[in-house]
Amino acid sequence: MQSFDPDELTYDAFLGGKLHLWQPRKGYRAGVDPVLLAATVPAAPGQRVLELGCGVGAASLCLGARVAGLSLTGVEVQQAYAELARRNNPEFEVIEADLAAMPLSLRQRQFDHVLANPPYFDRAASIASEDSTRETAMGEQTPLAKWVEIAAKRLAPKGQAHFIHRAERLPDLIRALPHDMGSIEVLPIAPRIGRMTELIILRARKSGRGAFRLCAPLIMHEGAEHIADGDSYVPAIRAVLRAGAALPF
Amino acid sequence: MQSFDPDELTYDAFLGGKLHLWQPRKGYRAGVDPVLLAATVPAAPGQRVLELGCGVGAASLCLGARVAGLSLTGVEVQQAYAELARRNNPEFEVIEADLAAMPLSLRQRQFDHVLANPPYFDRAASIASEDSTRETAMGEQTPLAKWVEIAAKRLAPKGQAHFIHRAERLPDLIRALPHDMGSIEVLPIAPRIGRMTELIILRARKSGRGAFRLCAPLIMHEGAEHIADGDSYVPAIRAVLRAGAALPF
Repeated sequence: MQSFDPDELTYDAFLGGKLHLWQPRKGYRAGVDPVLLAATVPAAPGQRVLELGCGVGAASLCLGARVAGLSLTGVEVQQAYAELARRNNPEFEVIEADLAAMPLSLRQRQFDHVLANPPYFDRAASIASEDSTRETAMGEQTPLAKWVEIAAKRLAPKGQAHFIHRAERLPDLIRALPHDMGSIEVLPIAPRIGRMTELIILRARKSGRGAFRLCAPLIMHEGAEHIADGDSYVPAIRAVLRAGAALPF
Repeated sequence: MQSFDPDELTYDAFLGGKLHLWQPRKGYRAGVDPVLLAATVPAAPGQRVLELGCGVGAASLCLGARVAGLSLTGVEVQQAYAELARRNNPEFEVIEADLAAMPLSLRQRQFDHVLANPPYFDRAASIASEDSTRETAMGEQTPLAKWVEIAAKRLAPKGQAHFIHRAERLPDLIRALPHDMGSIEVLPIAPRIGRMTELIILRARKSGRGAFRLCAPLIMHEGAEHIADGDSYVPAIRAVLRAGAALPF
C-alpha cells in the first residue's frame, strides 16, 4: 500500500499530550513499548539518532520530545508508514528502505544511538496477520540477527544500541551481537511483581568493555493481580507514559 | 596437594543439619551457591546426576539429601577435594579428572542431570588466590564454554543442565550452549528487592524446544537495605538453607 486513506487514520496523544501521532486505525499501532524504549535512551542534545523500522515514528519522536536538539533519522520499509512518520514531524528524516538494502548514503553515516522495536513474531513459528501492513510491522521478515548487525554497523565509536523485544528473544539478541559490541545491559520488564519477564530492553555499546548487567525488573502495574480496569501503572511508568519522563537504567 | 591434614578441616552443617560436610578450613569452602543450585534441580528418584567440578560435593550431596535414590557422580580435578567428597558420602562416585580429559568410561555414560558451579573468576581479568587449592576452585582454568560443552555432551535425551554463575557471565553461558540445547530458563538471584542481579541459575534441556524464559528474580534478603547482622533471609531461602526445601522455577 502506498498511502493510507485519511479516514483510515487516527490522531493519538502520547506522553500526556506532549506528542501527537497520526497512525493507521487498523495496521500496526504504537503501544507502550516504543514509548518505554525511547525513555531508556540516554541521548544528549546534538546527538545523532537512527531508528530501524521506525513505523510512524513513535520511538524517535518520543525521544525527540524528551531531549531537545537531536538529529533524528528513521528507516522504514513501508511507504504508507514512512509518509505518516514525515507527517508526524517534518524534521524527522525518514528514509524509505529495506533494512537489508539501505542506500549507500545512509550506510556511510554513523550515529550516536541506534534504536529498534523489531517485529515481535517470527513467522517461522506463528501465524501471519491478515492486514498486510500490520503483518510487515509485526512479522519478522528481516531476521532479528540482521537488525542487530545493521544497528552495530551504523554506530559511531562508543555509540549505543537499544532494542526492545519479547523476553524470549534475549538469547537471539545476545548471540547476534557482534564481538565489537559490549557493555551489555538488560532491563527486564514484567507486568507485575513476581511475574515472568515479558519484555526486555537490551543496551549495548560499540567497543564497550563493561561487564554484562542484568537489572532489577521494571514492574509495570501495581499489585500482585489485575483487580479493576483503569490505570494501574506504577509511578515510574506513569511518569513515562503520561509526562514524558526518562527511564534510566 | 594430595590430601588435607586432619587439622586443616572443618565439619560443617548444611540444610539445618540434614547434611554435614568435611571442608578445608582455608581452601575453597562451599557457601550458599551450591545449596541453591541443588535446590533448583528437579531430579526424580532413580535418575543419574553428574556434577562437574564437584569439590567436596556440596551441590550433589545437598541434592541427594532432598531426593532419595539418585545415582550421584562427580568429577573433581583436585585429589584433596575428591578425597573429601568421598569421605563426605562413600556412595558418591567421585572421579578424579580434569574436565578437559575425562576418562573414556565416563565419556561413554549419559546422565539425566548435569550440574555445575564453575569457578567464578576469569583469571585473564582478575587476581589469583595465594592458596593453590582455592585458586583451582575459584579461578577459571578450564574456559566456561568448555564446561557448558562437556555438560551438554554428557546429557541423555531430554536431560537438563543447571549452572549457577555470576550474572555477568550469562551472555557467555548462552553463547556457549550448543544448538541441541534449548528450553533455556534463567533464574536471576538478587540480594534485595530492586537490586541488580548478582547470580543466575541457568537451566537448559537437551533437544529442548521451549521458548527462553527469564523468571522473576529470587530475592535473598528481606528489606531494601542491610539493617542488622543476623539471618535476614526471605522465607523461601531460609527453607532451602535451613530445612533442605526445593526451589522450583
